[in-house]
Amino acid sequence: MSGDDLSKTLRETDQAILRRLREWAEKIVRNAQTEKRVYMEVPVRTFSNVYYDEEKGIIQMGERVAKREFLNVGHAKKFLQTSLVAAAIKDLVAEGITTSLRDVYYRIKHTIPGTKENTVDDQRESDKAIEDLETMLGFVREQMHVFSKGGKGKLAGPVQIEEIVPDPDGGKPRVVETDGEDVGMGGWAIPPIAEPERVQIKKVEADFVLVVEKDAVWTRFHEDRFWDKYNCIIVTGSGQPDRATRRIVHRLHYEFKLPVYVMTDADPWGWYIYSVYKQGSINLSYLSPTLATPDSRFLGLTISDYHEFKFGKEVKIKLTDQDRKRLKEMRRYPWFKHKAWHNEFDLMEKEGFKMELEATSSKYFRYITKEYTPAKLESKKFLP
Amino acid sequence: MSGDDLSKTLRETDQAILRRLREWAEKIVRNAQTEKRVYMEVPVRTFSNVYYDEEKGIIQMGERVAKREFLNVGHAKKFLQTSLVAAAIKDLVAEGITTSLRDVYYRIKHTIPGTKENTVDDQRESDKAIEDLETMLGFVREQMHVFSKGGKGKLAGPVQIEEIVPDPDGGKPRVVETDGEDVGMGGWAIPPIAEPERVQIKKVEADFVLVVEKDAVWTRFHEDRFWDKYNCIIVTGSGQPDRATRRIVHRLHYEFKLPVYVMTDADPWGWYIYSVYKQGSINLSYLSPTLATPDSRFLGLTISDYHEFKFGKEVKIKLTDQDRKRLKEMRRYPWFKHKAWHNEFDLMEKEGFKMELEATSSKYFRYITKEYTPAKLESKKFLP
Repeated sequence: MSGDDLSKTLRETDQAILRRLREWAEKIVRNAQTEKRVYMEVPVRTFSNVYYDEEKGIIQMGERVAKREFLNVGHAKKFLQTSLVAAAIKDLVAEGITTSLRDVYYRIKHTIPGTKENTVDDQRESDKAIEDLETMLGFVREQMHVFSKGGKGKLAGPVQIEEIVPDPDGGKPRVVETDGEDVGMGGWAIPPIAEPERVQIKKVEADFVLVVEKDAVWTRFHEDRFWDKYNCIIVTGSGQPDRATRRIVHRLHYEFKLPVYVMTDADPWGWYIYSVYKQGSINLSYLSPTLATPDSRFLGLTISDYHEFKFGKEVKIKLTDQDRKRLKEMRRYPWFKHKAWHNEFDLMEKEGFKMELEATSSKYFRYITKEYTPAKLESKKFLP
Repeated sequence: MSGDDLSKTLRETDQAILRRLREWAEKIVRNAQTEKRVYMEVPVRTFSNVYYDEEKGIIQMGERVAKREFLNVGHAKKFLQTSLVAAAIKDLVAEGITTSLRDVYYRIKHTIPGTKENTVDDQRESDKAIEDLETMLGFVREQMHVFSKGGKGKLAGPVQIEEIVPDPDGGKPRVVETDGEDVGMGGWAIPPIAEPERVQIKKVEADFVLVVEKDAVWTRFHEDRFWDKYNCIIVTGSGQPDRATRRIVHRLHYEFKLPVYVMTDADPWGWYIYSVYKQGSINLSYLSPTLATPDSRFLGLTISDYHEFKFGKEVKIKLTDQDRKRLKEMRRYPWFKHKAWHNEFDLMEKEGFKMELEATSSKYFRYITKEYTPAKLESKKFLP
């Protein structure tokens, strides 16, 4: 797509959102007139309405909806909050600007005249209202111009990116092109919103995507031009990834059929991060179709690797009670039900230690890019 | 400087470090031979050897050094750790690769043969050894190829950047050029090492630098092309800034004489972050000459602004006990001794609330770029 086409796509999505918001509001009014009840129908997002779709390998949301009623003491405030957030989103889209969840919270926060009651007291309330609107309207909040933080993911490798940046004064949008092979040591900073309307992934000449949990380790891969030698795209979410980073990984997989390999510490938290790329969270199950990459495979690190690659005992870190607790919880995740994973959980519990990616430096600084990762890619021994 | 010149500078610094390491080690050997004592002389970094240089406006390290002796039970382990880190740095520089503090920790960690003793048990030990080497050798760790994390600062605006990226196989280094006006929504990702040997700030056409504490708020300034309208460079450290972000701000000020204005939340933590850009920390006082920007000015936010710009009471956040404690501590910092700051501390304590930058959205989303910041710049009412 050219810059003009992209710009058109963004405009069309914006118009679709404004139309959808109007329909949604009109339905509330229509129901009020015919049923004499003011309510909105909110898809249920609790555990009871979520299931694991074995075939697609993703968490899905069921069909149940709940009525949120204006004239119900228990619902009135949420009804108000949802309406205020909808109005704020309308402004954002109409003005063509994006903003953060925190800003939306402050935008809608005010004291209700004649009372001491605030419309919202805590950002969690406006966040929840936005999540409800995502499910009711069928657009993700990034499409509705709302992001979380400023973006912390990074990328490098043989991929061409085109970002469209609307003009703040309504003029012609700018198109910013990035060649993933010609980025500095900080890589391409994945922007806070990575929807196709704003970020187009153009030419991709890579064979796979390598996701590295930690940015410091990613820097090792980038400095060693691993992406050049192994013809891949390297991505990091700098720890727990934000939605934009997951979105980019998802898109590289689905739009370009690239296999995705994820690399984290051998500890419950690292493995949980893998599961975030792979699956996402139960609370936000409705996002699985756009954020999850269920086909992603786990490259390492594991306690089996500790033995296979003969690391010294000085790299062991003792498991804490919290680690053991989290391991127990993860055993129940449907996507960790595979025997291979349970064997790794068993091994970690039995041996009582965890290990970090940086511990590979105990051999030599480039061991991870020169030997460990190439050996894992070669052997194809990935965990599901 | 051209790419070739830059590459030459990097090579020269590397050679100077290797020479300096050799001299340093030879001195230990020479002293051992003449004095029959094996020791290194480590500049003292505790509070007792630090003073505030009123004239330069920076914290400085005094002249005191302590002898770290090999044959002293209390020193032996630190002596060993410092030597191991020095050897690791030699490898890094000789091989032309960079790495993280965490990797250095693992690189030097091993169990001493015949004992149960490890060379290091905690990363703090290797970090401290690196800090000691910085003071002994007179090079910052970034010059010695060691960074902390992967870098989290961002920048946009009328500035041309040239990064030199060494070839991992010893070939010709790459030069990556970035035009700060042609970056995507994520901005230019400030790399983990921003020393002049690796990052050259070429043409600067800006009138000042605006540092924004939070990346989400920085995104507002970037999206609104504030840097274009006000001809400035906008920088964020995404919260507490890393050394590379402070280094870039410092360099823009000293190399290009740009005034620096810092913008944080009106809370003790935000004001502390301002003081990090301005001064740095007492423990790392020897870094002040390269990292601190004592001439930087505080643009906002303050509790006075709350009144002057007539924000609603719903944006107030109650001060916690910890906030009050931190305010008390900050009153004693020499660079906060100015009456204007004490008035702000008094006001915050008296009124008992703090306020976030995002609260400016309670007026409208672009209030901060359209009215608040322009008014502050216009009035020139900055805090020292």
